[in-house]
Amino acid sequence: MREPPVKPIEWLGDCVRIIDQRELPGREAHLEIKDAGQMAQAITTMAIRGAPLIGIAAAMGLAVEAGRWMGSGWSEFRAEVEAAIAALGATRPTASNLFWALGRMRQALAGGPPDPRSACDRLRAEALKIYGEDLETGRKMGEIGAPLIGEGMTVLTHCNAGGLATSGYGTALAPMYVARERGVKFKVLADETRPLLQGARLTAWELARAGIDTTVICDSAAHSLLARGLVGLVLVGSDRITLDGDFANKIGTYGVALSAKAAGVPFYVVAPTSTIDFKLKNGSDIPIEERDPSEVTVINGRPITPAGVKALNPAFDVTPAHLVTGIITEMGLVKQPLAAGLAKLEPPRG
Amino acid sequence: MREPPVKPIEWLGDCVRIIDQRELPGREAHLEIKDAGQMAQAITTMAIRGAPLIGIAAAMGLAVEAGRWMGSGWSEFRAEVEAAIAALGATRPTASNLFWALGRMRQALAGGPPDPRSACDRLRAEALKIYGEDLETGRKMGEIGAPLIGEGMTVLTHCNAGGLATSGYGTALAPMYVARERGVKFKVLADETRPLLQGARLTAWELARAGIDTTVICDSAAHSLLARGLVGLVLVGSDRITLDGDFANKIGTYGVALSAKAAGVPFYVVAPTSTIDFKLKNGSDIPIEERDPSEVTVINGRPITPAGVKALNPAFDVTPAHLVTGIITEMGLVKQPLAAGLAKLEPPRG
Repeated sequence: MREPPVKPIEWLGDCVRIIDQRELPGREAHLEIKDAGQMAQAITTMAIRGAPLIGIAAAMGLAVEAGRWMGSGWSEFRAEVEAAIAALGATRPTASNLFWALGRMRQALAGGPPDPRSACDRLRAEALKIYGEDLETGRKMGEIGAPLIGEGMTVLTHCNAGGLATSGYGTALAPMYVARERGVKFKVLADETRPLLQGARLTAWELARAGIDTTVICDSAAHSLLARGLVGLVLVGSDRITLDGDFANKIGTYGVALSAKAAGVPFYVVAPTSTIDFKLKNGSDIPIEERDPSEVTVINGRPITPAGVKALNPAFDVTPAHLVTGIITEMGLVKQPLAAGLAKLEPPRG
Repeated sequence: MREPPVKPIEWLGDCVRIIDQRELPGREAHLEIKDAGQMAQAITTMAIRGAPLIGIAAAMGLAVEAGRWMGSGWSEFRAEVEAAIAALGATRPTASNLFWALGRMRQALAGGPPDPRSACDRLRAEALKIYGEDLETGRKMGEIGAPLIGEGMTVLTHCNAGGLATSGYGTALAPMYVARERGVKFKVLADETRPLLQGARLTAWELARAGIDTTVICDSAAHSLLARGLVGLVLVGSDRITLDGDFANKIGTYGVALSAKAAGVPFYVVAPTSTIDFKLKNGSDIPIEERDPSEVTVINGRPITPAGVKALNPAFDVTPAHLVTGIITEMGLVKQPLAAGLAKLEPPRG
């Protein structure tokens, strides 16, 4: 398999090396994660983020943790691994990939001899499999989505659903990488994505690095740029997709979808089938993470609001299925009616 | 007339004292403006901003400038005043109040004896009249709009259409000040309003100062908070209203209007009749100011994007009339169909 555009996570055997995404775009700093607690911390503080990537990160974090208990008895080993699964599962509430990946790891734990050494091997193998599958999945979504990007088109995206949010190809950005590889000339408008500015910091960083013509805009500018006919296609990722096709994604996605619909611009979600929550009927059931108000009120270490003023910081919103043109998964393009198309997809293992 | 909640501009005879709004909410700093060039600079750099206020500021700036040429002959005096009108008129392209106020000043210049001393008196009187009328206008809009704010309601606003954007009462915030005075308990969600954060910095500052319960949100959060039923009313200001009822306001307003419509939440524009451009039929004719990309890419003195990445910075957008529930002016509430209601309003003098 060819090299992905970015390597946000690497398995080094006794530790996991991740790009500390809080430091981007200023510098490319790495963290070496040696146990599940450090990985949980990295996920909670968003040193590592992106729905597919936090699934991979949790799996790799669990695998390194298991290695620390290889010399223990089985019941202690199993208790420690279960505790780590619980800790990793409690880091972020919205993205279903996290629970999906930990579910696979729990199956791997149970799926063989009750022996720490052999269980460690199974957990490592499963984590690497999740990683490898994500690389392949990203590539496939890129190949399926690339034909949507026409020559000279301007594509708008929100947040970072890129290589930095996955094993390396991304979800929403994967079709852009493949289109670029095929020589298509297009431009990207990247919503800056307040409060944490993943669009301005991360999407702009990885697209510019790949030589893709990228322009950052304030989130609030997307709506009128769509209305003015300056955008030909919207591609976004997702943190959780329900059976009806409603989906959760970074706060602001719903507003972009509404504006795309009003402007008649195609709006696609790009997400692996692991993002589909086959237990949830519709978007009203998706829990929405509220993050610390200081993410809103402090930028680059300085307050932007008067002292004592409150802030509200919902990290995600839910976009109803009727605003979505289609969902690009590694198993193909799901068109409207989304519920019928999603029902045909085999639930992934775990 | 009672004291307005804020005093962003004061006429001191030989100079004009303004709050330097770039320093808020950190500190309440003032600038003393002694000529038209300084005022033009203050408007361009947004030390002073807000559609009604830049009209007042331009008028006062012209009046102090006229004072500097009182000892000149009439033709020199007139040439200098005309040059100052041109310079002040070239500061910002979107807000019609600026051109409206300068039009009144030009009429005052012409409307009396061709004598510098007498013309100076006329220009000063006219500037103070524009200021006084704005105070009265704000109060009236507040009284007309206040009944829309129900007990326990949450009102959402975008940007700063407050005391700091006018002579002191504001446009969108005027109904809040009057409702507060009448003892109504309500909450305000203030969109932070990227790129210059007028909502987080200015709206939060002046509302908190007045004891109004204020919560700042990222612009992108407004859409889903509306969809989730957490907002009862949207009040925004405007920089220019056309005869059809389309209006320009701070970038992001259109997206908020779209989301309010989708959620069935009443969306009102609060603006004096001086904001109505009786020469423009609809929104497609409104010029949209593009401001420096560094307003997007640099926050609190630090870049948020990788070096060399472009940014696009449209300062305003246009909201079509069909998304507007009504327009509150000092002459009353204009309901749908807006075009019919607006046609009945007498064009203001000038």
